Amino acid sequence: MSEIAYIYGKHAVKEAFVACPAAIRTVYTTDDDFRATVKKAGMVVEPLNTQRLPGDVSKDAVHQGFVASIDLSKLMRSYDEFARTLAVNNDTALVLLGEIQDPHNVGAIIRSAAAFGISGVLIPEHRQTQITGAVIKASAGMAFRIPLISIGNVNATIRHLKEQGFWIYGLAGDASQTVGEEGFEKPSVFILGNEGAGIREKTLEHCDITLKIPMAPDVESLNASVAAAIVCYAWSEKHGGALR
Amino acid sequence: MSEIAYIYGKHAVKEAFVACPAAIRTVYTTDDDFRATVKKAGMVVEPLNTQRLPGDVSKDAVHQGFVASIDLSKLMRSYDEFARTLAVNNDTALVLLGEIQDPHNVGAIIRSAAAFGISGVLIPEHRQTQITGAVIKASAGMAFRIPLISIGNVNATIRHLKEQGFWIYGLAGDASQTVGEEGFEKPSVFILGNEGAGIREKTLEHCDITLKIPMAPDVESLNASVAAAIVCYAWSEKHGGALR
Repeated sequence: MSEIAYIYGKHAVKEAFVACPAAIRTVYTTDDDFRATVKKAGMVVEPLNTQRLPGDVSKDAVHQGFVASIDLSKLMRSYDEFARTLAVNNDTALVLLGEIQDPHNVGAIIRSAAAFGISGVLIPEHRQTQITGAVIKASAGMAFRIPLISIGNVNATIRHLKEQGFWIYGLAGDASQTVGEEGFEKPSVFILGNEGAGIREKTLEHCDITLKIPMAPDVESLNASVAAAIVCYAWSEKHGGALR
Repeated sequence: MSEIAYIYGKHAVKEAFVACPAAIRTVYTTDDDFRATVKKAGMVVEPLNTQRLPGDVSKDAVHQGFVASIDLSKLMRSYDEFARTLAVNNDTALVLLGEIQDPHNVGAIIRSAAAFGISGVLIPEHRQTQITGAVIKASAGMAFRIPLISIGNVNATIRHLKEQGFWIYGLAGDASQTVGEEGFEKPSVFILGNEGAGIREKTLEHCDITLKIPMAPDVESLNASVAAAIVCYAWSEKHGGALR
């Protein structure tokens, strides 16, 4: 795959330049200083024509004079490569996106995962919204900071993670145990289900345990990215080491 | 004020009908059964013309055949009325929006506040995004379930709340204490600051204490609605009574 995404905004483009320069194809900017900096780094840079923005950047986009094209294949890594290099200890946790649909939720989850010291976000190739410019924007640039791992077969990946000593948690409204009660004593994987339907039945069978977030009785659900943030926060509370 | 907002989507319209019928001016629907139900309740209902949607509802909106016009003045209540009727105990907490700008954040905060048993959301009249159709949509209908209280002078309101025994918490990245360390032993007010600038200096002076959410060192901030959800969650963990 060599799909291109266009990112925009001063913060996002500078974040990409600092944290993940290999993924950048071309920087487009109206900022002379930044243009010089990028050129000095040996990268491709062009003046930004604000009347004709590159790629699919909308004319309403708040680009602040900064746009870049990103090679998504350079941003994602394969599960095999990731698993080979990951040093697993009790402060290791991963998030697995289980058919999260809304790009804003995907981006927000990546942002929260990075904030709470999660080691990587596993992104299934099928039935899961992929990384796009909108996702990167919603991640506030954190998509360049935390490993994003493409996975093929979800169940095979879960089996492999279990062999590495991971404990598999599924977030589910009808779970019997709450996130606050859990000790998270082993390396952890958090599976986050679809906004409407939750975690697929077949995936749920592979979870070691399901967790819920206690809520007021007349409230149906939390936003998917909020629920994800709370489980990551609850885990990080017991793993201060992951925030160092 | 008698501003009108248009809400759409089966869930949002039905939620308004059940939880806050007084705020509904007119229901527009293609659903015969629902039209009969609304008529039976003595409310105004019209067939929905999907070629010419009412008000400012965009033709791209996922209305599912359900639209309603809402009288925002009936949805909001005054601080005086709210304060008069609120029974304050140690399981009482309020959220105060301190210049939150993004309508999606405002809606998401309302949704999380309702989920975690918060007793009301205080919404300053000035420099604060007000309740709109987009806010109600982002709240997943919870704007009809939790009291939304309009306040004039923020500092005067805080002073009054302190007199009622409330402890005032400000969420701030540079706070010395974490949300997880706090016991929340008194009735609590959580002030949430602007997405970029945080809590206004003058408001910060009125806080009894500031709290932070621990994060990985290279991460700048959390999304404002995620930070709000986590402080409400952390409070609810110590106030199971508020979730009954």
